[in-house]
Amino acid sequence: MASIVLLLWCRDRPGIVAAVASWVTSIGGNIIDAQQHTDAHDAMFFQRVEFEVPPDRVVDDVHRSFGALAQELQLSYRFGVRPYRPRAVVLVSKPLHCAMDLLSRAYLGNLSLDMQALISNHPDARNLAEMFAVDFVHLPVDDSDDGRATQEDALAQTLESLQPDLVILARYMLVLPPAIVRRWNHQMINIHHSFLPAFAGANPYRQAHDRGVKVVGATSHYVSERLDEGPIISQEVVPVSHRDDVESLARHGRDLETIVLARAVRAHIDHRVLVFGNRTIVFD
Amino acid sequence: MASIVLLLWCRDRPGIVAAVASWVTSIGGNIIDAQQHTDAHDAMFFQRVEFEVPPDRVVDDVHRSFGALAQELQLSYRFGVRPYRPRAVVLVSKPLHCAMDLLSRAYLGNLSLDMQALISNHPDARNLAEMFAVDFVHLPVDDSDDGRATQEDALAQTLESLQPDLVILARYMLVLPPAIVRRWNHQMINIHHSFLPAFAGANPYRQAHDRGVKVVGATSHYVSERLDEGPIISQEVVPVSHRDDVESLARHGRDLETIVLARAVRAHIDHRVLVFGNRTIVFD
Amino acid sequence: MASIVLLLWCRDRPGIVAAVASWVTSIGGNIIDAQQHTDAHDAMFFQRVEFEVPPDRVVDDVHRSFGALAQELQLSYRFGVRPYRPRAVVLVSKPLHCAMDLLSRAYLGNLSLDMQALISNHPDARNLAEMFAVDFVHLPVDDSDDGRATQEDALAQTLESLQPDLVILARYMLVLPPAIVRRWNHQMINIHHSFLPAFAGANPYRQAHDRGVKVVGATSHYVSERLDEGPIISQEVVPVSHRDDVESLARHGRDLETIVLARAVRAHIDHRVLVFGNRTIVFD
Amino acid sequence: MASIVLLLWCRDRPGIVAAVASWVTSIGGNIIDAQQHTDAHDAMFFQRVEFEVPPDRVVDDVHRSFGALAQELQLSYRFGVRPYRPRAVVLVSKPLHCAMDLLSRAYLGNLSLDMQALISNHPDARNLAEMFAVDFVHLPVDDSDDGRATQEDALAQTLESLQPDLVILARYMLVLPPAIVRRWNHQMINIHHSFLPAFAGANPYRQAHDRGVKVVGATSHYVSERLDEGPIISQEVVPVSHRDDVESLARHGRDLETIVLARAVRAHIDHRVLVFGNRTIVFD
Repeated sequence: MASIVLLLWCRDRPGIVAAVASWVTSIGGNIIDAQQHTDAHDAMFFQRVEFEVPPDRVVDDVHRSFGALAQELQLSYRFGVRPYRPRAVVLVSKPLHCAMDLLSRAYLGNLSLDMQALISNHPDARNLAEMFAVDFVHLPVDDSDDGRATQEDALAQTLESLQPDLVILARYMLVLPPAIVRRWNHQMINIHHSFLPAFAGANPYRQAHDRGVKVVGATSHYVSERLDEGPIISQEVVPVSHRDDVESLARHGRDLETIVLARAVRAHIDHRVLVFGNRTIVFD
Repeated sequence: MASIVLLLWCRDRPGIVAAVASWVTSIGGNIIDAQQHTDAHDAMFFQRVEFEVPPDRVVDDVHRSFGALAQELQLSYRFGVRPYRPRAVVLVSKPLHCAMDLLSRAYLGNLSLDMQALISNHPDARNLAEMFAVDFVHLPVDDSDDGRATQEDALAQTLESLQPDLVILARYMLVLPPAIVRRWNHQMINIHHSFLPAFAGANPYRQAHDRGVKVVGATSHYVSERLDEGPIISQEVVPVSHRDDVESLARHGRDLETIVLARAVRAHIDHRVLVFGNRTIVFD
Repeated sequence: MASIVLLLWCRDRPGIVAAVASWVTSIGGNIIDAQQHTDAHDAMFFQRVEFEVPPDRVVDDVHRSFGALAQELQLSYRFGVRPYRPRAVVLVSKPLHCAMDLLSRAYLGNLSLDMQALISNHPDARNLAEMFAVDFVHLPVDDSDDGRATQEDALAQTLESLQPDLVILARYMLVLPPAIVRRWNHQMINIHHSFLPAFAGANPYRQAHDRGVKVVGATSHYVSERLDEGPIISQEVVPVSHRDDVESLARHGRDLETIVLARAVRAHIDHRVLVFGNRTIVFD
Repeated sequence: MASIVLLLWCRDRPGIVAAVASWVTSIGGNIIDAQQHTDAHDAMFFQRVEFEVPPDRVVDDVHRSFGALAQELQLSYRFGVRPYRPRAVVLVSKPLHCAMDLLSRAYLGNLSLDMQALISNHPDARNLAEMFAVDFVHLPVDDSDDGRATQEDALAQTLESLQPDLVILARYMLVLPPAIVRRWNHQMINIHHSFLPAFAGANPYRQAHDRGVKVVGATSHYVSERLDEGPIISQEVVPVSHRDDVESLARHGRDLETIVLARAVRAHIDHRVLVFGNRTIVFD
């Protein structure tokens, strides 16, 4: 059964819930889920309303109808439809477990992704792409002075030609240039292998080992121009001990990374994530 | 800032959210939190709406006004006010950690409870009650044939005279008679030291050890006439290993028990729990 | 670097640790890990000793040498070598996520398994086997009166011809006959999709939903003749809420199932599991 | 039953386990628990051996006897006895939950602590100390230029006069001067209300909220001269969401803080913690 998701945000004030609910009723819709969040500190109101409309109702009319209300009430908003199966591109470097997990979930129908391509700066993922019958795009960085810039141009062009709805950095180890980050703003999800903000940057498991922490974590976030500082969507940790060397921390971490990334991607697909400043509201 | 909580449930159908939101607006109220849940399997709708009303608004008028709407729409409902500080009675036997934890939280203002009395079939808790300046009622079971029945009568009378809003079984090891359970229906919360339905009944840590489980848990639930089968409010587990003997399982479990019980009591105080059949909806 | 693992158990008494450590030294070995566990309740002693020996040392001599000591001290024991890459057969029915996960881990080198075959009573897994270049054996149950018995015979013969070191039931939904269970005693690992002993048997997520639990779990165990009662190797849970219907519980559970099963298989491969009665000692 | 704990560390090399086990046997002892850890990266060996000795055995003789072996094998070591009930001083500022929890556990026999005094720069904890019949020492910081220095002197003197075995900073919000930190090196345990190294310093819950993390944590560590950078003993996190404001993060965190601190204190009392560089080995 298809449904429409409305995500909205505005300065908090009385009457919004009633106005939105009445509007849904007015277009013949039936609310199947409504969640709201008020941030008292910032005096902001956020809402996710999922509703069904009669089959003869034209989606554009729905949008236009709400646009009028939004203008009147000065609401910011975004619409989505469900089920949603975004065209997705996965970027990966040497560690393949996150890419493998995403391909597996898409294959099993566990994640609703229309996999367009697997892109890598290394050749290792080619076989993986073939197993799952997904296009593989190899974009190596050569040794020349402008090897990195050339690769970034090729990546930008590849993404432009594919026009994905979602770009997933599944342990892609090269920092992306600001232009690409801006182009796919709120459409690009990364997995970082630590509980950010701890151990940002390179080799987080080595950093974790040297600090002697008793938990390691993984963090999935929208990519922003400041490395490892984008809005966090999902985050989880696992207990470790002195028995774990760097390799064993990484092994514990791999299971976390796949789960945390998949959870963030699912929240995105379900239109459950609103970004406000550098934080997210992730509805249940 | 005082607010009113409305908990309602009914057969699922379109328009409820809009009708309730409009009603709140009609009485000059402002919704500060609204959560809903639709159980597709049972075709039921559940909602918790928390709203503020102008200071001059009489609560009885609010109730009466909603009563008319509820009748029209055939809604079941319940009102609560916040902040809420229920008069509470704690029943305890020999293990004192849960009672100690509740008294500590109430003392520190961490749980909003007006502690009326600590009731026990053993004398061990008397000192605890004195430390926290709470009345202690010792209701021992004597050896006579009707010792148990006599004690149950005394307990029933003590509760009637105290008229608590909430009765908390904080490791009270005697099964209560049906009459008491019915009298305090949905007002009596128990902590069981296992992840129910596993290891119901006596000595759950012994049972857990003998089965060789790798997690132990604790479960907090409303007390129903069928022992350890009431609606679960809160439940959590902790990993254990072969290294843990029964005593060590119990030690791990104690921390869980206090936290799980306190969490259930807090959900109850916040009017976040709806019971439907033998399950609960615990709003966030 | 190759090493030898010695797992031993006996009635607890003084001197065992010293005797074993001296023996390792006497054969020129170097202990790289030693863990012990004393079960005070059953007065049993368990130990896992991992040690390296000089390259010219013959393994059979090591075994013979220890055999003499074991007889003298009345020790029960078992030897293993590391690295170990057991020949493995995976049995699966319709839900493919656990089989997919095991194949992925073996492919990525995350689990040291020599995958011999994927066996299923359904055809669904055939494509999966092909993707990972593993033999697929389809053993359907036909509608005839002895369809089930015929299938069980075929399964028994297939296993005999493959002679796996390890049989993994990765959501295989048919109960195995006692003869097969006995034949692969302590070599057959199952995943059950609940935190046993809660919700044994069929449809555990349905059972969990009907009971209204706030956690769901998964349990990996050696298969014994009594269904869902074998020695537990690994077990974990995840929090759920009233928002989760049966399908959503199953989705949460899938991630747990794959992780719990993989963890149990890894412990088995590392020779870290000792079975005593119906419980396991799982060394770190 | 009394036992002796031997904690030792040295460069890793063959034969240590055997030599120590033989020594225990040689003095008529019986090993009841032995755990070891080899840090391959630093080539270090760590061991905890707990053993019983005949009642007529003099502890000083045991120490002298091992001293000879340690010199021969160039082992560093430390002895402890069990049961152990250290004289403990608790330092606390305004938030009382951790101090309350430690006092409760000591009172219930859940933590083996001989509480000497509760010391605070605020008067708020006085009533708590009286409830549990523990001495209260009020060491306020006055407004004078040297108010802080004067208070630190008074604290140093108070500690010297009490000669505690263990100093517990149970949410003591003043940074201690290096002299005090050095004096009670490895005898002073702090709780920090974040998963260090994230959110060191002041107001970690505010920092956590502003960063939009999805978990908050608590960390217990030995106090070192560099603030919030001492060796971590115990650490745990709890999931949070956008629904949690700073106050609600703090409430979730309080339960964590008490549990993480109590766990670290218990590990210390059980002689299970070895510090090596800035990391800990915490035996099970």
